[in-house]
Amino acid sequence: MTEVPAAPREREVRLKDTLARFQDDNDVWVATADADGVPCLVPLSFRWDGETFLLSTRATVPTGRNLAANGRVRLAFGVTRDVVLVEGAATTLDVGDLAPGEREAFAAHTGFDPGGFAVPYPYFRVAPVWIQAWREANEIAGRDLMAGGRWLS
Amino acid sequence: MTEVPAAPREREVRLKDTLARFQDDNDVWVATADADGVPCLVPLSFRWDGETFLLSTRATVPTGRNLAANGRVRLAFGVTRDVVLVEGAATTLDVGDLAPGEREAFAAHTGFDPGGFAVPYPYFRVAPVWIQAWREANEIAGRDLMAGGRWLS
Repeated sequence: MTEVPAAPREREVRLKDTLARFQDDNDVWVATADADGVPCLVPLSFRWDGETFLLSTRATVPTGRNLAANGRVRLAFGVTRDVVLVEGAATTLDVGDLAPGEREAFAAHTGFDPGGFAVPYPYFRVAPVWIQAWREANEIAGRDLMAGGRWLS
Repeated sequence: MTEVPAAPREREVRLKDTLARFQDDNDVWVATADADGVPCLVPLSFRWDGETFLLSTRATVPTGRNLAANGRVRLAFGVTRDVVLVEGAATTLDVGDLAPGEREAFAAHTGFDPGGFAVPYPYFRVAPVWIQAWREANEIAGRDLMAGGRWLS
């Protein structure tokens, strides 16, 4: 805690770091909740297509049920001292709803092809609505990169 | 994704690794939800006293409101490929409710003394109920370390 933090990153650098994480990372913390206010938090594989995140999990586990029921989701990338937080809206998709080549691209990126299981493994497309990125306290100011579904400039 | 994973850890090793993380880490991902099923996910500082986690955040932010309202919380430690997940029950505490020396111990561990702010910064004591630890798919079996509030043997 006594280390001197690096100087805060400019918006352009934060945006570049954030998009690199979306592009390169394979897993993300996924927080959802049910109608009784019981939170769930699990790591899931994902693929970023430049505009949305594609996830997949079993229809019958709490995260799958919550995403299908209310679509409210928070995603946390990285570590607690290099945070990228996303609030998003999820839509449930079957494999037939994916774009051409998207199933294969998801499988190649994540190492996981949920279309091949006998049990229902729907996809969920998460549109980001609000994105924040910060490292230490000196980056709290300016941490909003997207609000209301629009990139801030 | 093509790396050969390490052999799965024995329970004793997972438990030791998990307790070391509780003891040494300063921050944790904290997932909560409100009564409408809206999830929240933020990183917070914490201190582990050997049995419970002590957190603190502002009473007026979503995490503070959710913890006070229903006490349902999931904590994620580490990274998505070295996961420690905790489901816990949170109790709201004022600084006067802490054990002797606990305020100072929290401040020393986290670098953050919430008792010193003018705005309400309650503490939350999280009793773990269910703890899982795993790295790769070959550690899914045996990932439960605690269930129903009891360490498994």
